Amino acid sequence: MRSSPVSGALHSLSKPEPHSSGEGRVLEHLRSASGTCLHVIDPYKTRLGEAIEKARALEDLGFPLLILGSTDYCDFEQHVPRFVEALKDAVAIPVVLHFPPRPGRGFPVADEADAVLFTAVLNSSRTYFVWRSYLETLTALARRHPAPLRLPEFLFTAGMTFRPDPVSGAAVGAVPSDETPAALETYASVITTVGFDLVYLYSRHEHVPVELCESLRRRVGPDPLMVASGGVRSRDQIDAYLRAGVSFVAFGGALETPDWRTVLRQLAGRRDR
Amino acid sequence: MRSSPVSGALHSLSKPEPHSSGEGRVLEHLRSASGTCLHVIDPYKTRLGEAIEKARALEDLGFPLLILGSTDYCDFEQHVPRFVEALKDAVAIPVVLHFPPRPGRGFPVADEADAVLFTAVLNSSRTYFVWRSYLETLTALARRHPAPLRLPEFLFTAGMTFRPDPVSGAAVGAVPSDETPAALETYASVITTVGFDLVYLYSRHEHVPVELCESLRRRVGPDPLMVASGGVRSRDQIDAYLRAGVSFVAFGGALETPDWRTVLRQLAGRRDR
Repeated sequence: MRSSPVSGALHSLSKPEPHSSGEGRVLEHLRSASGTCLHVIDPYKTRLGEAIEKARALEDLGFPLLILGSTDYCDFEQHVPRFVEALKDAVAIPVVLHFPPRPGRGFPVADEADAVLFTAVLNSSRTYFVWRSYLETLTALARRHPAPLRLPEFLFTAGMTFRPDPVSGAAVGAVPSDETPAALETYASVITTVGFDLVYLYSRHEHVPVELCESLRRRVGPDPLMVASGGVRSRDQIDAYLRAGVSFVAFGGALETPDWRTVLRQLAGRRDR
Repeated sequence: MRSSPVSGALHSLSKPEPHSSGEGRVLEHLRSASGTCLHVIDPYKTRLGEAIEKARALEDLGFPLLILGSTDYCDFEQHVPRFVEALKDAVAIPVVLHFPPRPGRGFPVADEADAVLFTAVLNSSRTYFVWRSYLETLTALARRHPAPLRLPEFLFTAGMTFRPDPVSGAAVGAVPSDETPAALETYASVITTVGFDLVYLYSRHEHVPVELCESLRRRVGPDPLMVASGGVRSRDQIDAYLRAGVSFVAFGGALETPDWRTVLRQLAGRRDR
């Protein structure tokens, strides 16, 4: 515990702490794997057989985990848990869910997943998507009969979307994040004061600017893990993000092609073989 | 949903929304009762019989609810639930818990309480007390066998303590809140971005400055309910806080005297009878 008074920008408050309840394994694993890539499989765009092949390829290439995610989803219960179970059977790396919450239901949870990105969309116009959804999710879980035998780890994630994106607007009330220095300073204060584990930066139709990542990293300090995602199509882009202080560069659509094995090896920096 | 881009200070994000899961009754009740007093009964300093008498007196005076709280508590399970049950039998106003979380256990919860102040201590040096404790509490609830039949409503509360306070330091890692305008602006950004329902301002050994309440209210806008507490001993103080935009003035120790009925009527502004 620190005893010094709070500094103006509150940046000193976000010291990560060991989890005290047996949680935290996926987070620790992620911390140890900083500087790599992540792939997001959309189970509504990828057949299960292909998802399994991709998961094995990712594991072989040393990807630290596998993200299953989709902004537009339906029949989660009928569709996603069987993906999670099949992927868990196929690979040893953690399977992490990244789906938006829905009012009245909260975040969808497949019990067998290793972790769930509990995303507070800082640029949402609706407090539900900032964090009221957390409570709804967890009170729903608390009321389940019978109680779940296990629960995924919940990763505190500050989400921010950049540039016009009507899909994210409809799904989570996102209005494009303000990219001015003053706004970044405010976002950084929120991130460090609250102590998010992860910051997930996303641009659906453009790119998260590399300079913005650099500026935000400088403001939040070294602790929070930072993911940049959206429109990633080249190894050079990935390297630029990593040099800017991004912890992980995530790509999804890049592998939604029959030629995904070649693309994956290129993005993973394995041009040599 | 708003479609305008986020403004620099992010103040536009905190629009309260109707709760979608049957939650929110205590919050709605509180919103309708703004401009009044609250009393905090410490069940470790007050005998149950006296607590019941006080609860009845508060209800008669139109207090909107009753807070049970203590910074230093032990044997919560053996002690507090029986207070809650007895008080619920005695009065119709909601009974709300205000206890700090403890690492490894989270917030203590008595199922029969109407609400729990889920306090994120913004000036804590430990992220556990900002909001990691939320998750610990709720995953513990989710794992309970059998599942609880009912759960209290959780009120999203931003807590801030002012001026040196070793007890809050030891209990929740609180370092005195920075009172500079720049720090207040940052705190306000956190409060409005996250969309807290309540802001609970507390000074254990001094007073929360009235001008600070006014300044913070101006920065956070009209939405979050604001409680000022600590060292409240006169009706003039209460009136000054209410004029400064505070929603509720809370007092505890003021009634820890045999003469509490007289003090209560004075503080409640009933000098006339």
